Amino acid sequence: MAKKRKSRERKKARKRKEIRMVGRDEIDSILEKYEKEKRIRIATICSHSALQIFHGAKMEHIETIGITTPERVELYKSFPNARPDELLVVEDMKHIIDLEEELVKRNAVLIPHGSLVEYVGSRIKRWKVPIFGNRNSLLWEMDKSKMRKWLLESGLALPKRWGEEGLKPPVIVKYHGAKGGMGYKILNELPARKKKEEIIEEFLVGVRFYPHYFYSKLLPGGYKAGHGRIELMGIDRRIETNIDEIYRLNSAGVYPATSFTVVGNLPVVLRESLLVKYLEMGKKVAEKAEELFGGIPGPFCLETIIDEKMNVKVFEISSRIVAGTNIYPMGSPYSDLLFHEPMSMGRRIAREIRIGEEKRKLKEIIY
Amino acid sequence: MAKKRKSRERKKARKRKEIRMVGRDEIDSILEKYEKEKRIRIATICSHSALQIFHGAKMEHIETIGITTPERVELYKSFPNARPDELLVVEDMKHIIDLEEELVKRNAVLIPHGSLVEYVGSRIKRWKVPIFGNRNSLLWEMDKSKMRKWLLESGLALPKRWGEEGLKPPVIVKYHGAKGGMGYKILNELPARKKKEEIIEEFLVGVRFYPHYFYSKLLPGGYKAGHGRIELMGIDRRIETNIDEIYRLNSAGVYPATSFTVVGNLPVVLRESLLVKYLEMGKKVAEKAEELFGGIPGPFCLETIIDEKMNVKVFEISSRIVAGTNIYPMGSPYSDLLFHEPMSMGRRIAREIRIGEEKRKLKEIIY
Amino acid sequence: MAKKRKSRERKKARKRKEIRMVGRDEIDSILEKYEKEKRIRIATICSHSALQIFHGAKMEHIETIGITTPERVELYKSFPNARPDELLVVEDMKHIIDLEEELVKRNAVLIPHGSLVEYVGSRIKRWKVPIFGNRNSLLWEMDKSKMRKWLLESGLALPKRWGEEGLKPPVIVKYHGAKGGMGYKILNELPARKKKEEIIEEFLVGVRFYPHYFYSKLLPGGYKAGHGRIELMGIDRRIETNIDEIYRLNSAGVYPATSFTVVGNLPVVLRESLLVKYLEMGKKVAEKAEELFGGIPGPFCLETIIDEKMNVKVFEISSRIVAGTNIYPMGSPYSDLLFHEPMSMGRRIAREIRIGEEKRKLKEIIY
Repeated sequence: MAKKRKSRERKKARKRKEIRMVGRDEIDSILEKYEKEKRIRIATICSHSALQIFHGAKMEHIETIGITTPERVELYKSFPNARPDELLVVEDMKHIIDLEEELVKRNAVLIPHGSLVEYVGSRIKRWKVPIFGNRNSLLWEMDKSKMRKWLLESGLALPKRWGEEGLKPPVIVKYHGAKGGMGYKILNELPARKKKEEIIEEFLVGVRFYPHYFYSKLLPGGYKAGHGRIELMGIDRRIETNIDEIYRLNSAGVYPATSFTVVGNLPVVLRESLLVKYLEMGKKVAEKAEELFGGIPGPFCLETIIDEKMNVKVFEISSRIVAGTNIYPMGSPYSDLLFHEPMSMGRRIAREIRIGEEKRKLKEIIY
Repeated sequence: MAKKRKSRERKKARKRKEIRMVGRDEIDSILEKYEKEKRIRIATICSHSALQIFHGAKMEHIETIGITTPERVELYKSFPNARPDELLVVEDMKHIIDLEEELVKRNAVLIPHGSLVEYVGSRIKRWKVPIFGNRNSLLWEMDKSKMRKWLLESGLALPKRWGEEGLKPPVIVKYHGAKGGMGYKILNELPARKKKEEIIEEFLVGVRFYPHYFYSKLLPGGYKAGHGRIELMGIDRRIETNIDEIYRLNSAGVYPATSFTVVGNLPVVLRESLLVKYLEMGKKVAEKAEELFGGIPGPFCLETIIDEKMNVKVFEISSRIVAGTNIYPMGSPYSDLLFHEPMSMGRRIAREIRIGEEKRKLKEIIY
Repeated sequence: MAKKRKSRERKKARKRKEIRMVGRDEIDSILEKYEKEKRIRIATICSHSALQIFHGAKMEHIETIGITTPERVELYKSFPNARPDELLVVEDMKHIIDLEEELVKRNAVLIPHGSLVEYVGSRIKRWKVPIFGNRNSLLWEMDKSKMRKWLLESGLALPKRWGEEGLKPPVIVKYHGAKGGMGYKILNELPARKKKEEIIEEFLVGVRFYPHYFYSKLLPGGYKAGHGRIELMGIDRRIETNIDEIYRLNSAGVYPATSFTVVGNLPVVLRESLLVKYLEMGKKVAEKAEELFGGIPGPFCLETIIDEKMNVKVFEISSRIVAGTNIYPMGSPYSDLLFHEPMSMGRRIAREIRIGEEKRKLKEIIY
């Protein structure tokens, strides 16, 4: 048995080795072509926050490319202010990876979002397409133990995990395979043992806030972090089914199985006295990213819980645009304090690319 | 007993017959007068979404008429950007019906909303005032069995009803007489029998989303549906008292009687990958309306529930503007993708009327 | 025992006497200096709703002064559109009171908010700095029995209190010392006796709405109240931890101790037919304030609950800007009906000051 496992692990290791990471030099030489030819384009997968990304790019006068399956073509053509200039249609999302050449030919910078993480996954390692931000940050997001290391070393407070000393109920049981929260459940006692596919961690008591950060090395001033600045672009609260209306049933003594599938978002603002804490958290994460894997230019989001003493814990990081920003295509209560135009996260990304192109600093914000 | 019922039913039938529906030709000849005299006006009852309707009409430079009872006069005069140009004061809302002549004299198009449905009810059948949209759609909304037919034939998934095979608890008990959700209750088992005044249906487990659609035959492009296009103008979530804060009491072991009275609305956005499903639902409803009763130009709303597998069910349709649009007097995260100006549903209605007047196509959007 | 208490009370009375209230004449003479020297400035404590206040002042071209402790300096410098022109740094918030001279020298009008109430408290009585609005209203807000008198005499419905006839469970137990809702709990039965530090009152069943009013004596028209007008500038709903996500745990049979610490806000709109009621409530409160202590120019907020019959009860008043207005730095669904520019409460305050300066009526809106 032990032998078998070892052999399996060796195989995996070999496979991992095979996926050679595309080098910064390779992407940089593509970016040099882009800077020479001008007319950079913004590309993204038609899902998640794509409408906002196209909408924002148009506001910054950058052409756009949507990557989509056939059944979404009509939708993405139907919003005039967010209609991509070109649609690349693939039969199946798993074929996105084959668009390498087509994208580079078009001077495309790919904006990563949750669907890229889902459909391309760790294959982004070897994908020779310029990706906005730092593709390393996506790999650190995908690998839960790396993510944990990153957040802990940033000095943030995290929920305790299975196996850690002091883990007490309530706990939440999550599943590796599950799509976005389906079937997650809260338990009021520690289970005797953990199944392989389960992730068991402390269920934090409090309320959730999802701050949207943008880390810029190209704009001066603002809230300093490393060699750049942290911008708080907005905050949302996720709506998860069925957990976020389960009280309606509970009120009648009905207790159905819970699920935490994200299906929407609400706009919120935070108590102003908590803002220092939130900007400091963003700063620490950005600075630690610099140290660990070369930085996190662009958008990211911390998934937080505030308890009754206003202590803040972080249970996850998304190292790219989150769908909660879709609430704010014309700016948020926070971006309005930062910019004089309606500034969505999508537009903010486009603007950073435009500035990067003008200042010939694309290499600092794209990999 | 059976005899008595029969006689009662015959009486009702006679009464129904008496309410002769005003003909399209009659309304069309009024609209011809309007088109000739120009200076069309927008009228609505001072309640529900009237402020938004007046505000939107002003933005499109159309004069407005408010119909109100005395105690609301001051309120409707007090918002400068939504102040109707004229107020018609009636002692009691039930007298609205008598304003026929006055409204036609003023070249008024009435914008129907929830209060019209409440105060005028099926008498709109014989009301010789041009109504924005198709008055048939309001009659289909008011008659619950017709509404069900419409939605089912559109291919939408609905909650099961009392008497249907496979109905399982939890169920919700609603009341015909009740005003907007008062006294509705959730039961964890099927009652032995249903009282006459009760409506009993499956209580769907999930979270609610209320998408606001506009169906236009006058603007080209967009998401095609029949001979027109479907616009997603916004989404809200209703706040119902006391059910939406009942968890506060439940947390202390207090379980008061529930109620579902709508008292407000929250802005939300939907997971982007669900948008195709939602636009398709809107499209199907609009196309089926064309087939069943001559179409549904203008605004409508589907009352939906999303379950943990992201299946969507529809428990009602409002075939006119809903109050949830009041959140967005300056546009929503979706209308911002469609229009370059702040576009509320109220303004969208006014714009459609303006275009209809210019193109002499009022007959297509008013009956 | 009785003797001891009497002696204690006498001491308190003496102390109270010592805090001589600064006279209107004293503030008026400062305001005369301001009117003569022009270049009035807006000052506030860097917390609560300060970003919005600075942002709004900038939009009205009024210079701003932030009062802050060292650890917040960077935050308040980091939002370009809300950066105060000058920062006065104090080592500890309790030293704010010493800034009297510095503020008057700079022609500063202080905008009071929740943090001023918290840090300066009743010492504002003797603070010789012009305060926007009427400082008496802050004193009436701080003294719970005065607040109750004000609201009751305004004809509003309030929750019953411990000792009042007819008090029935559920009740909520609040604490004098507690910061913003920490440790508050709901009880399903009346406790045998009340501890000194406890406030026990009826827990109202329904949903919460927080309307933001502005009372203006300088702008004509609108919803008349006394010699001025009431403006409904927006509505929010507070997010309190852990009570507002406690249903998540309850759904799994976990019932942690509750807490009501405010940590954020959500935007909402109200059912339009309730607006008359809400504007009338605002009007009554403003008129009664005139009668009781010289009026309440500027912003205030009623903390309300709507029950299933749409009856509205008020459990508190904030007689100054509330943090819920932070949702609307560019205007709300209601302010958009009142103004043609993006009008936050912060900007509304600044505009009133600007008008007051132009019309030499600062004395009417500042004390």
